[in-house]
Order: sequence, then structure tokens, then C-alpha cells
Amino acid sequence: MPEPLGAHFLAEIRSQPDALRALLEHEPVYAEAAARARERGATTIRMVGHGSSDNAASYGVYAFGLLPHWTSLRDSIALTVHYDTKLEMQGSTVLALSQSGRTPDVIEYVTRARAEGAFALAVTNYTDSELALAADLALPLAAGPERSVAATKTYSNQVAALALFAAHAAGRGAEIAAGIRTTADLLEQALPTLESQARAIALPFASVGRMFTIGRGIEFATAREIALKLLETCRVAAEPFTATGLAHGPVAALDPLFPVWAVASDDETLPAVVEAAERVRAAGATIVASGDAPEALVGAAYVLPVPKPPLSLLSPLLSVVPGQLFALALAQAKGLDPDHPAGLSKVTLAR
Amino acid sequence: MPEPLGAHFLAEIRSQPDALRALLEHEPVYAEAAARARERGATTIRMVGHGSSDNAASYGVYAFGLLPHWTSLRDSIALTVHYDTKLEMQGSTVLALSQSGRTPDVIEYVTRARAEGAFALAVTNYTDSELALAADLALPLAAGPERSVAATKTYSNQVAALALFAAHAAGRGAEIAAGIRTTADLLEQALPTLESQARAIALPFASVGRMFTIGRGIEFATAREIALKLLETCRVAAEPFTATGLAHGPVAALDPLFPVWAVASDDETLPAVVEAAERVRAAGATIVASGDAPEALVGAAYVLPVPKPPLSLLSPLLSVVPGQLFALALAQAKGLDPDHPAGLSKVTLAR
Repeated sequence: MPEPLGAHFLAEIRSQPDALRALLEHEPVYAEAAARARERGATTIRMVGHGSSDNAASYGVYAFGLLPHWTSLRDSIALTVHYDTKLEMQGSTVLALSQSGRTPDVIEYVTRARAEGAFALAVTNYTDSELALAADLALPLAAGPERSVAATKTYSNQVAALALFAAHAAGRGAEIAAGIRTTADLLEQALPTLESQARAIALPFASVGRMFTIGRGIEFATAREIALKLLETCRVAAEPFTATGLAHGPVAALDPLFPVWAVASDDETLPAVVEAAERVRAAGATIVASGDAPEALVGAAYVLPVPKPPLSLLSPLLSVVPGQLFALALAQAKGLDPDHPAGLSKVTLAR
Repeated sequence: MPEPLGAHFLAEIRSQPDALRALLEHEPVYAEAAARARERGATTIRMVGHGSSDNAASYGVYAFGLLPHWTSLRDSIALTVHYDTKLEMQGSTVLALSQSGRTPDVIEYVTRARAEGAFALAVTNYTDSELALAADLALPLAAGPERSVAATKTYSNQVAALALFAAHAAGRGAEIAAGIRTTADLLEQALPTLESQARAIALPFASVGRMFTIGRGIEFATAREIALKLLETCRVAAEPFTATGLAHGPVAALDPLFPVWAVASDDETLPAVVEAAERVRAAGATIVASGDAPEALVGAAYVLPVPKPPLSLLSPLLSVVPGQLFALALAQAKGLDPDHPAGLSKVTLAR
């Protein structure tokens, strides 16, 4: 009997709790890197990466803002690599995100940023990769080999890695590490239910060609990552917006055949998501409500709740999972293989 | 006889050369603001805005990087406004972008950023607006009243305003102002041809429900803005990607019924756009090539060239226009009114 479509994808979604625990074994390296960044005064964080790595960086903006109160940015790679611009980087720490450690322009960026004085850290699954060697220090992602082309456990470990580094920068390492461990346990307990819920709702979406995903604050990263999973595994034109950005134009494209996946978690941005969902409903679009507070979205057609984490900052580790499982189920319903999407390879060497 | 659909939209697209010239009359205020930012050492640029304003900010990242070599970011509004995070902003200049000057969370951001020590500038069409009053200084957008809900001339004036401010920060104000003036003249001469070309290609797209737009470096802003016009005026699910980001997942969604609009202008990022277009072609998708070097994209089904500006940094002022005109023609072909898209109002008060 042949393997079902997406066997690796499913196995890797299921292995996320273990992958998070494996990351925590490397906590001393994260603590050391954060201490060195503080000693150097390198408190502007420049994150670089593509695809899922860039989505994780959207989370990093909040992790660094909320924990050590440092300014962080998803830096332009093109400015440094293509335009050869030399920015002052003495006060900067670079976090270069690449699962494989082989992304060409990310490696080039790290080399150039160090020449301008940046402290550069490679967050990668391969601590002997070219990227790791180009950096001052490698932070192990420790997710284990990922065989599905569409990333899952490496994304969630990137999110956790950014939280862990930011926590140590803020002197709150032990607290956040304990929170990640508890979150891994909660995810493990919830997975069987999440799997059956995602399977149950996928079929009505088999003919959907376009979707929006919305989130705000720390959950904007989740909205971006779920949209990317739908694009790469289900051939759905899924586009992420912040809850507020949706109102500034894109809402006009909605109609009853254009579903919106809303990530609603219980933090300070929830009212903005609730308001956005009301606009979506007024446009007649179908709402899929996810996150740890989906009941806040009145009138949602489908609800996929996740457990509340011990700290709201960690909710993205849970709220991305229904999106991963939905992408798997929808791909299977459409006869597509999420392990091998058309036109993609595991290591992307595009410049 | 009733007015044709999108009469304001067309009139405002056509008025962009005049709007750019009107902006240049306020150059002394931009020079003064840049001098004050330099005196204060406020050389980290934090841009905030939604929709088209945020798209213009994507351009600003390059204007500030390439001209004064300052680090700039599209800052998170949620971090400051929703999460009440206090970041060190003594060394920062805020550029708050809002056509109306009435966007609630942008006003709130400015108030809070000033309390943390930032030098805050309001870039707005209304220098007596609440946003202007909340800032240290207002930089007039001077685009004149915009009656179409979908922004056109206010977007291009935001791009020019960012270039002008960055130029003065770099001691290159006169050179860039002259470049903007020449670009306005080039656009005026090109408009009739651009209009007829855009009309000619719109009809084959009347049944298209989804598109990607791609650009890199300074033209990523253009890709974002064209996608937004298509979303809000044509109900097309149009999603922007950097040329490199496309390869990291989204390319898997393409098929022959999924067109891609590629902005190819003649600068250091052109090879990345050429490589991305090759991936698009391999996926069988239709390419619309625009920008000032569209001939570099082999195999494009449609080509919409714009003139080369006196400095490549100014190409986005020209390359966005075929996208605006295409959105108008496509909306008309679909019987939609770009002046009044469903569910939108000119001033968005969403939080």
C-alpha cells in the first residue's frame, strides 16, 4: 500500500512538541548569545530570512519588543546584498534564519553585516552549514531533519528560538523556557482533537481558490504562516493581512465565496481582530475562527480552538497548528502532495 | 449621460505629474525637517501607516538606506499602541503617513512615540488634521483633494515625499528634487500611451480571480501598491511578493490561469526579478512585464514599459502608473466602480 499524501508533513506536525523540547536542551547557547549581545550593546535586532523564516521573524518583532524592549526589524536583504549599501551596524545583532543554512542571499547578508560591525547569529537546523560558519555563533534549531518541503516543525522551533533568545536578553530565560515546555505538553495533548477537527472542515473548502488570513500583533506571524502553507500545499491564493490592514482596502475584494481565516488569541490585540471579523461578516464572507479565543468572533462558520498557553506571548506555537493540519487535509482532499509541492525543492537557492 | 465608472480615479491618475510638482513647492519644509532630524541625531526612521501608506513606507526603507544610509523600518503600530510597549526612541524620527491625517492608531502611535523621545513628522494632505497637530512638524503631501476611495496621487506623493526627505537628510536635496521634477514631466508625456496600452490588455483579464505581483528592492513597494489597487478596485485576490520570496513557497500555487505582474526596472535587483520570472514561466503562468526594463523578462505575454527616470531611485513614481491604469480598465470591464469600492470609505477609522 502506498504512503498517504503528506505522510512526512503529518509526521512532522505531530513531532512539534518533541522538537520544542529538543530546542530547550540548547538553552545554554541561547543564554550565552544573549549575554554577548548585551555586552556588546548590540540591541537593535535585524532578522533576515525568506518564506517561513521571514514569517517567524514577524513574531520576533513582538518577542523583542515585549521582552527586552529592543527594536527589531525584518531587515531588507536587497539593501545590503544587491545595492551594496553600508549601514552602521555596530549596535546590531543579526538573527539569520534558515532551516538549511544554505540560503545564498542570507549567507551573503551575514558576511556583509559582520563587516559593518554587527554581531551575527545563525539560527539553523545545521550548525555546520555555510551560514553557521559565516556567523559569529550558531544557535541550533534542533528540530531534527525535515523531509516535507513545506516547513512545520522548523517554523515553530524558529518562533520558540526567537522567544528564548529574547527572554534571555530580558533576564527572563527560565520563565519563558518553562512556558515553552508547558506549551509543548499542551500541544501534545491537543493534537488528536485538532487533527480530527481540521479533517472535518477541509472538504467544504475543496473548491476554494482564494482566502485571506488575518491576525494582529504576535498572531500576525501565524496568519502569514498559515497563508503560506495554503499557497504551497493547496494551491490556494491565500493572503495574510493585519486585522487593521484588512480594512484599508482588501476588504473590498471579499464576497460569500471568499473565506477568511481569523486568528483570535486572548491578548491586547483581540478587539482589533473582533472588529475586523465584523467587517468580514458584513461582506458576507465565511469566517474560520482559530487561536485560543475563537469564541470572541461572533458568527464564525467554523471554529478551531487551541489551548491557552501559560503566557499569551507563546500562543503562536499553538495557533499555527490548526492551519498546518487544515492545509494537510485540504491538500489531501484536492489530491495534492504537501511533501512535494510542484516547483519547489527543500533547499531554495533562488537569489 | 452619467459619468463613466472611475471618473475620479482616472482624473487623479492623470493629475499625478501636477501633484508631484505641487509637492516640490514645499521643499523648504522637508529640508528643515531633515536638518532637525540630523541635529537631534534621530537617524533611525520609524514609518507607520496602513494600506497605500504602508506600501509607500516599503519604498522609504530603500530611500533612507540608499541616500543617507540610515536604518529605517515599517514599525509595528500594535507593539506601541495595543501592547503599550515603551521602546527607546530618543534616536528615532517617526514618519507618520496618513492621507487624511485621521487614522486613529497612527495618531495614537505618534503621541506615544513622542513621549518616548522620538521626533515625529506627519506626512499628510491635511496639515491642520489631528495627526498633524499630534506631531512635531507636518510635512505637506500637497496632492490636492483625493475623491476616489482608491488612492493614486497621494501614494505617489508619499513616495516622492520620502525620497525628498531622505535626499535632504543626505545633503542631496536639490539633485533629487530636480529628478522628481523631470520624472513628473516624463510621466506627463507618457500618460496617453500608458492609458491606451492598459485599456488594450484589461479585457483578457476580466475573468481572472487571482494574481501575484512581484518586484524587488525599491520596486517591491510598487508590487505591493499594484496588488492593493487590484484588490480594492477589481476584486482580484492579488498578492505581492519579493522576487526571491516567490521562490520560497508561493510559486507552487501558480498555474496557467494565474497571471503574474512583474515589475522590472533597471537597477541592481533586476537579475533577481529575471530569475523569478523564469520560475513563473516554468510554472506555465502568464507574465505581465512592467517597469522601465520589461524587455529583460523573456516570454512575457504582455509588456507595459514606462520611461527611464533620471535616477533609478525614482522609477517607482513611473512604474506604479500602468498598474493604476490597468486596475481602472479592469474594474470598468467588470462593471465595478473604483471610486466607490464595496465596503470602503475614504477615511478608514478601523483600529
